[in-house]
Amino acid sequence: MGTIRIIVAGPRGRMGNEAVKLVQETESFELVAVIDRKHDGDNLGNLDGFQGIDAPIYSDIENCFSSVKADVLIDLTTPEVGMLHTVSALNHGIRPVVGTTGFSSEDLAKLEDLTTEKGLGCIIAPNFAVGAVLMMKFSQMAAKYFSDVEIIEMHHDRKLDAPSGTGVKTAEMIKAVREPKVQGHPEEKETMQGARGANIDGMRIHSVRLPGLIAHQQVMFGEKGQMLTIRHDSFDRVSFMSGVKLAVDSVMKLDVLVYGLENIIE
Amino acid sequence: MGTIRIIVAGPRGRMGNEAVKLVQETESFELVAVIDRKHDGDNLGNLDGFQGIDAPIYSDIENCFSSVKADVLIDLTTPEVGMLHTVSALNHGIRPVVGTTGFSSEDLAKLEDLTTEKGLGCIIAPNFAVGAVLMMKFSQMAAKYFSDVEIIEMHHDRKLDAPSGTGVKTAEMIKAVREPKVQGHPEEKETMQGARGANIDGMRIHSVRLPGLIAHQQVMFGEKGQMLTIRHDSFDRVSFMSGVKLAVDSVMKLDVLVYGLENIIE
Amino acid sequence: MGTIRIIVAGPRGRMGNEAVKLVQETESFELVAVIDRKHDGDNLGNLDGFQGIDAPIYSDIENCFSSVKADVLIDLTTPEVGMLHTVSALNHGIRPVVGTTGFSSEDLAKLEDLTTEKGLGCIIAPNFAVGAVLMMKFSQMAAKYFSDVEIIEMHHDRKLDAPSGTGVKTAEMIKAVREPKVQGHPEEKETMQGARGANIDGMRIHSVRLPGLIAHQQVMFGEKGQMLTIRHDSFDRVSFMSGVKLAVDSVMKLDVLVYGLENIIE
Amino acid sequence: MGTIRIIVAGPRGRMGNEAVKLVQETESFELVAVIDRKHDGDNLGNLDGFQGIDAPIYSDIENCFSSVKADVLIDLTTPEVGMLHTVSALNHGIRPVVGTTGFSSEDLAKLEDLTTEKGLGCIIAPNFAVGAVLMMKFSQMAAKYFSDVEIIEMHHDRKLDAPSGTGVKTAEMIKAVREPKVQGHPEEKETMQGARGANIDGMRIHSVRLPGLIAHQQVMFGEKGQMLTIRHDSFDRVSFMSGVKLAVDSVMKLDVLVYGLENIIE
Repeated sequence: MGTIRIIVAGPRGRMGNEAVKLVQETESFELVAVIDRKHDGDNLGNLDGFQGIDAPIYSDIENCFSSVKADVLIDLTTPEVGMLHTVSALNHGIRPVVGTTGFSSEDLAKLEDLTTEKGLGCIIAPNFAVGAVLMMKFSQMAAKYFSDVEIIEMHHDRKLDAPSGTGVKTAEMIKAVREPKVQGHPEEKETMQGARGANIDGMRIHSVRLPGLIAHQQVMFGEKGQMLTIRHDSFDRVSFMSGVKLAVDSVMKLDVLVYGLENIIE
Repeated sequence: MGTIRIIVAGPRGRMGNEAVKLVQETESFELVAVIDRKHDGDNLGNLDGFQGIDAPIYSDIENCFSSVKADVLIDLTTPEVGMLHTVSALNHGIRPVVGTTGFSSEDLAKLEDLTTEKGLGCIIAPNFAVGAVLMMKFSQMAAKYFSDVEIIEMHHDRKLDAPSGTGVKTAEMIKAVREPKVQGHPEEKETMQGARGANIDGMRIHSVRLPGLIAHQQVMFGEKGQMLTIRHDSFDRVSFMSGVKLAVDSVMKLDVLVYGLENIIE
Repeated sequence: MGTIRIIVAGPRGRMGNEAVKLVQETESFELVAVIDRKHDGDNLGNLDGFQGIDAPIYSDIENCFSSVKADVLIDLTTPEVGMLHTVSALNHGIRPVVGTTGFSSEDLAKLEDLTTEKGLGCIIAPNFAVGAVLMMKFSQMAAKYFSDVEIIEMHHDRKLDAPSGTGVKTAEMIKAVREPKVQGHPEEKETMQGARGANIDGMRIHSVRLPGLIAHQQVMFGEKGQMLTIRHDSFDRVSFMSGVKLAVDSVMKLDVLVYGLENIIE
Repeated sequence: MGTIRIIVAGPRGRMGNEAVKLVQETESFELVAVIDRKHDGDNLGNLDGFQGIDAPIYSDIENCFSSVKADVLIDLTTPEVGMLHTVSALNHGIRPVVGTTGFSSEDLAKLEDLTTEKGLGCIIAPNFAVGAVLMMKFSQMAAKYFSDVEIIEMHHDRKLDAPSGTGVKTAEMIKAVREPKVQGHPEEKETMQGARGANIDGMRIHSVRLPGLIAHQQVMFGEKGQMLTIRHDSFDRVSFMSGVKLAVDSVMKLDVLVYGLENIIE
């Protein structure tokens, strides 16, 4: 397979910056342009922290997609512009790889139609951490054999919501395959409210919040005489990049929309 | 130091049985009698599973303590008879090592007076698992340096109450030394009730219940850039025996009441 | 599907005993006979610990398989007699579920031919702990995405060999799919010999031996910014029974030999 | 207690930078000067990243210590200059808090004499992570009650030496209190060399190296029926700062040399 020509949106953002590095470091990838709401017409190599990189900057996406011959758009920016970028890319024959949790089901339905019409692959993923996606996938597989499961998700104490999105998604993936079961002793009692965690379909989920922690989750399956534990530790969002790379390689072989990295992982 | 002469109460019970084994296996210990509500006047060696052991059986404790010269009573039976046994042993100059969570503060006050009057050591412990006691002690020590802590206690799913007694006791020992702190983000929200666990003085405690599990607890301290975790796994109550041995050795050097193994551990 | 008629070999052994209980507790299973080198002609219900169970005892397997109409043989005895039992069962139209690590590749080749000839399912498994099998399977799947992995296996201190069979098997399953890689820093140095563990194809495996432990293994995958850990804890061999049940249900739908539980797990 | 006047050495280094922040954020601390081999005579507030901070920069330490009235020197630079700084500070009546593993026993002996002579506190610590120090201290305490222990230390795969300094130090602290014991089965055999780890006084230590990891250690104590685990995770060296703060507060009350944070922790 030849080189994959890539446009990165938001190169100065934390994730976009890592994406630029990824493209630079990968032999089969080539950075052909970046989209940035500032610096239109300039070259990325002239910006702080991008010395030695040669890629034209476009602030207008239509202009970018018309002017540059590209295979893939990597967009790890915001849901607001993400949908616009995705549709436009597809209309220009460019396969989008988009990281977002923000697309509505209407958005996804629209993209499903558009990709099918164009015969172009498109990957939308709420989570590019391959390890987290494997944790969820394995948890779903294990739930066919273990009916009892509890989830402990652990994050830094600046996190506002509990349980975490990944925790809830894991529980929902398990729920989809296991026979419903109310866990614990039928007559168990909380002498202090909340001790047994939140209840999702009879499963329990616990949210730990401590300074120093980053993003961690462990899924515990128990059965007479044994326990199976699947755990993911995310120390740094740089971990997303191996998932982005996998998505770029995969999207080139796709001609439909795929939502979620778990669907391109075997 | 010479041999310690020991009476074991309830030799046919699960814990009493282990205590008999402990005494047999310890060179400096000698089994001089057992207390059993059945088989009065018989010898323990005649009972199933005690072949080769020579110890007279008494059903009446007064009779036992008057007839047999002993240094220590090991009583791991029930709170109901435990208090009776303890008082009677002290009155006969025998030092009691008693495993129970059931003594009231009146009971303990009474024993404090009695041990002081007699100048005899006495150890009452709710938990003889040295590892669990160390976990609690270390947690208390760590709490002086780490203000944020969460407790996860994990048990088999036949357990009725949540959180566990050890979990609550750990939290109370921490509470006694740390400055009160409401943990987590001040504006954190539970989107599913119970996710953040039970609240003890601003700390959070989570109770996992799964078949296969036995009795486990982990205490997690978090601070900018680091985490300290102290964990105890109890796989079998045979683990109590090293604590009983420690208590027997210690009680011989005491002339007062000690409540809780943590107070004889340095 | 109707009731599955089952013969259990070695009902007085630790595992055979659990298998008898499993058959009794499973509504769709029926115990039609047991094979025991003692008590020929007696009924299992007359033996200590089997009160209320009705199953004839045979010491001669040919006699047993000719006299009793059965669907499945559960054999968790020893490799020496296991092969004999397996061949004989197949010759009588009975599907074997056999737990052993002791069959040679010649044995397996012979059984492959025999099952194909007879059109009968047969499951031979070195490990019936579903959790352990899933741990190995998931580890193999994860190795496609994570090139760096270390295995820590932990057992009681009466274990003679290190590393454990499950540890080595896990490493071999990973080796079969990952691109070979020498892990660690190219210039790393052991200042104390053995610190970096044993080397299997560039992976590292570490064997912990401590009293109190039972059988535990954790497989750790690391990559920039993240870690994925898959862990199995075996607290009691009763955990094998869910795997035996799965095998009995599966063997009824098979017409060939399957070696290893991982091959009937999806 | 009044404000503690502090000089920080190496403010532009990674650790010095954090130390400057610590002093700024702590109400009872006051930054009175910094030592930097460049920018002599300038003010720290004029340097990139230090806006709003007011502290004179000195390149000559004698000049610094003579010109500025200070209570404590925080030096987290290099062993080469550390000894010079420490001696000079003491000679000027300033208490040093120094982070280094590089002082020889001659250096320490010399500092012991000097601090005694001057009646000034001085703290030299190889490790300022309070959690790591507590892990070592608790491990030593636990070793009095558990004779069997294994250490697993885990680091990123750019680390050159195995086992880690902290791992070896933990083993040595345990060795100092426990009765020597060769662990594992007396006849255990490594079928693959290195599986059982490195041997320190009969204890075993295992070194895991994986990308993604930072610096982690777990100390596992096993005994019949139970396990006690003490674990420290270091995610970021910012964790050193709570130890530095503790040391600064402690050094003001000392009139001798203390080596190692464990000796100011109760």
